[in-house]
Amino acid sequence: MNIAQANDLVLMLAPDEKRFLIRLSAGAQLHTHRGFIPHDAIIGQPFGNAVKTQLGQRFLLLQPSTFDLVMHVKRASQIVYPKEIGYIVLRMNIVPGARVIEAGTGSGGLTLALSRLVRPDGRIYTYEERDDMIELARKNLERIGALDVVEIKQRDIRAGFDERNADALFLDVREPWMFLAQAHAALKGGGFFGSLVPTANQLTDLLREMESWGGWSDVQVIEILMRQYKPVADRLRPEDRMVAHTGYLLFARAVARMPARAEIEQADEQTESE
Amino acid sequence: MNIAQANDLVLMLAPDEKRFLIRLSAGAQLHTHRGFIPHDAIIGQPFGNAVKTQLGQRFLLLQPSTFDLVMHVKRASQIVYPKEIGYIVLRMNIVPGARVIEAGTGSGGLTLALSRLVRPDGRIYTYEERDDMIELARKNLERIGALDVVEIKQRDIRAGFDERNADALFLDVREPWMFLAQAHAALKGGGFFGSLVPTANQLTDLLREMESWGGWSDVQVIEILMRQYKPVADRLRPEDRMVAHTGYLLFARAVARMPARAEIEQADEQTESE
Amino acid sequence: MNIAQANDLVLMLAPDEKRFLIRLSAGAQLHTHRGFIPHDAIIGQPFGNAVKTQLGQRFLLLQPSTFDLVMHVKRASQIVYPKEIGYIVLRMNIVPGARVIEAGTGSGGLTLALSRLVRPDGRIYTYEERDDMIELARKNLERIGALDVVEIKQRDIRAGFDERNADALFLDVREPWMFLAQAHAALKGGGFFGSLVPTANQLTDLLREMESWGGWSDVQVIEILMRQYKPVADRLRPEDRMVAHTGYLLFARAVARMPARAEIEQADEQTESE
Amino acid sequence: MNIAQANDLVLMLAPDEKRFLIRLSAGAQLHTHRGFIPHDAIIGQPFGNAVKTQLGQRFLLLQPSTFDLVMHVKRASQIVYPKEIGYIVLRMNIVPGARVIEAGTGSGGLTLALSRLVRPDGRIYTYEERDDMIELARKNLERIGALDVVEIKQRDIRAGFDERNADALFLDVREPWMFLAQAHAALKGGGFFGSLVPTANQLTDLLREMESWGGWSDVQVIEILMRQYKPVADRLRPEDRMVAHTGYLLFARAVARMPARAEIEQADEQTESE
Repeated sequence: MNIAQANDLVLMLAPDEKRFLIRLSAGAQLHTHRGFIPHDAIIGQPFGNAVKTQLGQRFLLLQPSTFDLVMHVKRASQIVYPKEIGYIVLRMNIVPGARVIEAGTGSGGLTLALSRLVRPDGRIYTYEERDDMIELARKNLERIGALDVVEIKQRDIRAGFDERNADALFLDVREPWMFLAQAHAALKGGGFFGSLVPTANQLTDLLREMESWGGWSDVQVIEILMRQYKPVADRLRPEDRMVAHTGYLLFARAVARMPARAEIEQADEQTESE
Repeated sequence: MNIAQANDLVLMLAPDEKRFLIRLSAGAQLHTHRGFIPHDAIIGQPFGNAVKTQLGQRFLLLQPSTFDLVMHVKRASQIVYPKEIGYIVLRMNIVPGARVIEAGTGSGGLTLALSRLVRPDGRIYTYEERDDMIELARKNLERIGALDVVEIKQRDIRAGFDERNADALFLDVREPWMFLAQAHAALKGGGFFGSLVPTANQLTDLLREMESWGGWSDVQVIEILMRQYKPVADRLRPEDRMVAHTGYLLFARAVARMPARAEIEQADEQTESE
Repeated sequence: MNIAQANDLVLMLAPDEKRFLIRLSAGAQLHTHRGFIPHDAIIGQPFGNAVKTQLGQRFLLLQPSTFDLVMHVKRASQIVYPKEIGYIVLRMNIVPGARVIEAGTGSGGLTLALSRLVRPDGRIYTYEERDDMIELARKNLERIGALDVVEIKQRDIRAGFDERNADALFLDVREPWMFLAQAHAALKGGGFFGSLVPTANQLTDLLREMESWGGWSDVQVIEILMRQYKPVADRLRPEDRMVAHTGYLLFARAVARMPARAEIEQADEQTESE
Repeated sequence: MNIAQANDLVLMLAPDEKRFLIRLSAGAQLHTHRGFIPHDAIIGQPFGNAVKTQLGQRFLLLQPSTFDLVMHVKRASQIVYPKEIGYIVLRMNIVPGARVIEAGTGSGGLTLALSRLVRPDGRIYTYEERDDMIELARKNLERIGALDVVEIKQRDIRAGFDERNADALFLDVREPWMFLAQAHAALKGGGFFGSLVPTANQLTDLLREMESWGGWSDVQVIEILMRQYKPVADRLRPEDRMVAHTGYLLFARAVARMPARAEIEQADEQTESE
C-alpha cells in the first residue's frame, strides 16, 4: 500500500521546492518556513498528496529517492554527487549482491547510495580513520536504515583491507596512489577499481603509480558535468551558474600483474627459439 | 569462484583496448583483429588473467560491467548512454525490487541496465510498437539473460499501460507529451517520471503540457556532459572531441492533480466564510 | 613612455587580486580595503611596479586591458561577457575602420569593447530607448574616452536605423526577430549580423523568423562556455563553480533575399523550356 | 563600393555551406563539387548576391571575416581556434597600434588574426624555427595581404627576442616555461603575457616556473568550450559532437620581479626598526 505510515522516512516538498526529509513519528511535528504540520496529519495519507500547514501551505508527501537521500546527508566534507555516483554504479558494476569496499567513508553519501543498490545480499565495507566522520556517517546511514548491509571500519588503510575477492573498491582519499597494493589484494581478479580526486596533480600521481606498479587495465579518466535548466516552458534556459568541478573520476580493472617488459621479451625469445 | 566457465558472458579486452563480449561455449572460437582464441582456452581461467591468441597477443579475461553491456548492445536506434542511465538510476530511485515501466524499448540498452538493478524481485515492463525493435531488443536482452525480469509488450501506448502503481516510468519516445495521462495512471502516487528528448522544442512542448495538465511536481531538467581524458600520467589532457549532446533529461513526480486555480480560490473563500 | 601620468586610466591590483580602475588626478586618493594611496604616489611610476598603501600593502600599477574595462563597466543590466565579445569580434569581422551598429546599448560594455577595436577610422552607432541606460552607458564610455568613435542614439528601433551599408550589426534586445527588416536595410550586402538571447524560446523565434523572412545566410548558433582554473602549480583544478549560461549567440550574413521557392521553380521551368 | 573587384579576396558559400576562399583574377575559374564559376562572372557583382555555376547552383558572394580567414589557413600543425583567439584579443589588449610578439608562428593562424586587429600602426613580430612552418605561414599571410604589418623571424627563441617594450607576447610552444626570462625582457612593464598548452602537465610546469621565477602577476588559467547548435527553428539542439579540448590558456602580466620573500622580511624588519 502506498500510504505513509509511522516510522516511514518521507520527503515533504514545500511550494517553493524546499525539501524536508523526516522520519514519521506519532505526536511529532514538522516545523518549516511556511508553518508546521503534525506528523499525525501525514500518517495515513497517500503518497503524492498534499498536506497543509496551519498556514494553509500545501506540502507534497513523497517517498525520497536515492538522489534525495544523498543530497540530504549531513555533511562535514565534500560529498560524492549523484552525477558521479550514477556513473560509478554502471562503470563499477554495482548490482544486487555485490560486495563493495570503500575508503574513506566521509559523510557516508556514497556509502548510502551503494547500500541501496546491493540489497538484499550484497555488502558495503567502508573504511574511515577519523572519529568525527565515523560518527557522522553512522548517523546518516542509521537514519535511512542502511546499517544492516554496511560495515563501518575505523582503520588506517595502509594496513590493508580485511576483505578478499571484493567485486569493487572505491578510494575517495587524498592520496589514493598510496593504497594500490592494498586495493589490488582486496579485489577479485578483474575486480572494479574507482577513485575520485579533485586535482590534476593527484590524477597524474595516481596514473603514474598505476602505470609503474602494473596490475591495472582498462583505465578510464572522466569528468561528469551536469547542466541544469530552469524548467519553464516559455523561458527555457540553462541556470546561470553550475557546479564546474567536483573531481576527476578514474576507473580501472584489477588484473594479474604483468611480468616486466624485460621478462616478456626474454620469454618471447625462448618461445621463438623452441 | 572467480573462474570463467562454459556459458559465462565474458569480456575479452585486446591489447589496444578493443572489446569483445562473448558467451563461452566449449568448442567455439573467438576471432579478432589480433588472432583467434579457442573458448576452451578461456574456460577454466581465472578472471583478470590474460589469454593469448595463436599470434601471442594477450587478451584480458574480464567480467562485463553494466556499462560494458550497455555499450555492447546491438543498436538500430540512438541508445541512452551510461552517463544518463546512471543519473536516471539515482533520480528515479531504481533499487532492487522496483517495478519500472519504459517506452519505447528501442534497442533495449536502458531496459538491460535497469533489469540488472531491480533484481531479484523487481520487474521491467517495456513497451514498443515496432516489430524490428522488439526483435532486436529481445535478442539483446536474451544474450545477457535479462528476460526473467523483463516483460516486452508490443503496443501503441496511446491505449495506456497495463500496470498500476508502478514505482517509476520512463518515456524515450518522440512525443512524450502525448502520453502524460497514461503515464500518470500507471504510476503510484508520488511515482517517478523521467523522459529523454533530443531537441529544445520537444522539451518546451513537454514542459508546457505538464504545466497545463497538472499532476506533476518537482520537475527538473538537466543535461549530463561527460568529458573523457587520455589516461597518460605525463601527458594528461582531455580527449580532443566529446559527445556534446545526447538529449535533455526531464524528471518529475506524479502527484494528485491540483484543482484549477479558480476552484482553489472558490474553496478558500468558502472556508473563510464558514 | 611606459610611465603613469596624470589623467591616465589605470588598474591598481591589490595583493588579493582585487582590482581598482581609476583615472589618475593630482591630489586625489585611492581608498581601498587595504589602506589608501595618494594618486601623486602613482603618477610618475613605471607600469608594472608596485605602489604601497600607508599600511605597506603593495598594489600593482597596470594598464587596463579591454577585458578589464568591460568587467569594470558599471552595470544596470546583464552585460555581454568577454568570452562572447571575443568571439563576436572574429565572427563579425570587427577590425580597424569597421562601421558597426548595435542595439540596445545597455550598460555599454559591448559598445566599449567594439569602440577600442575599430579605431581610428571606424565608428559604433549604438541605439537605446531607456533614459537611465543612455545615461549609464554614456558615463561608462566617457570614463574610458570612447565617445569620439561612438554615437549614442536614443531611439525606438522599430523605426529603423539611420545608417546604410553598415559592416556589422548586433542586436542585444528582448525580441530581435521584430527588427530583422530594419537590420537588413542597415547592413551592406553580405554584412555581418549577430544577436545574443538568453532563452531557447527566443532563439527558436529568431531562427523561425529568419527562415521565413529570407535574406539571411550562413547562420550559426553557439554557446561559449568558459572554465576557470585555480592557477596553482601543485593543486591544479577547475574552480568549483562556473558561469553556465549567459546566452545563445546567433550569427548570420545579410544576403539578397531569395525569391520564394515557387518563383524559383517557375523560373527554372521557363529556363528549361526555352 | 560594395562590389567584388579583381584581386579581392572573397568567400564563395555553396548551397551546402561549403566554403571557398579565392582571390579574384580575370580569366580564372572556381571549380567546386557543384560545378564551376568563371571569376569574371563574380567580378562586378555586389557582395551578398548569388552567382550560379554552370549547373545552376547558387553560390553566395561574401567578404571573408577574420573567423573565415583563420579557418581557411592551410595548416601543418594544430591551429589556435577563433574561440581562443577572440578571448586572447580581449585579455591581452590587442588593439589598433599594439606591438605584439608571438612564438612559434606555426601555420600563422593566430598571426593572421592579430595582424588584422593592430592595423594600421601596430606590428606583429612572429618567431619560428622550422623552415617548413616559416614557408607555410608566409604563404598564408601573403594570401590575405598581412605581410606589411607582420615580421616573420626564423630564430631559436632561447636566444631571446629582438624587441623591447612590447605590449603583448604569446607563446604557443611546447615548453613555454623555458622562455619566461626572454619573454619578460621583451615585454614592457605590465605587458600582457599569454600561452596555450594542450596538457595539464605543461600547465603545471608553466605555473611552477612562473611562481618560482617571479615577475608575473594576475595569472589566470582558463579553457574555452564552444557548443554549436543545429540552427533549425523546429528542431533546435546542440550538435552531437563538439571539440572538447584545444588547450589550456594561461594569461599573466609582466611586473617588476619581487624581491624574494626572505629579502622582503629582512627589508620589513629594517623599516620597522628605523
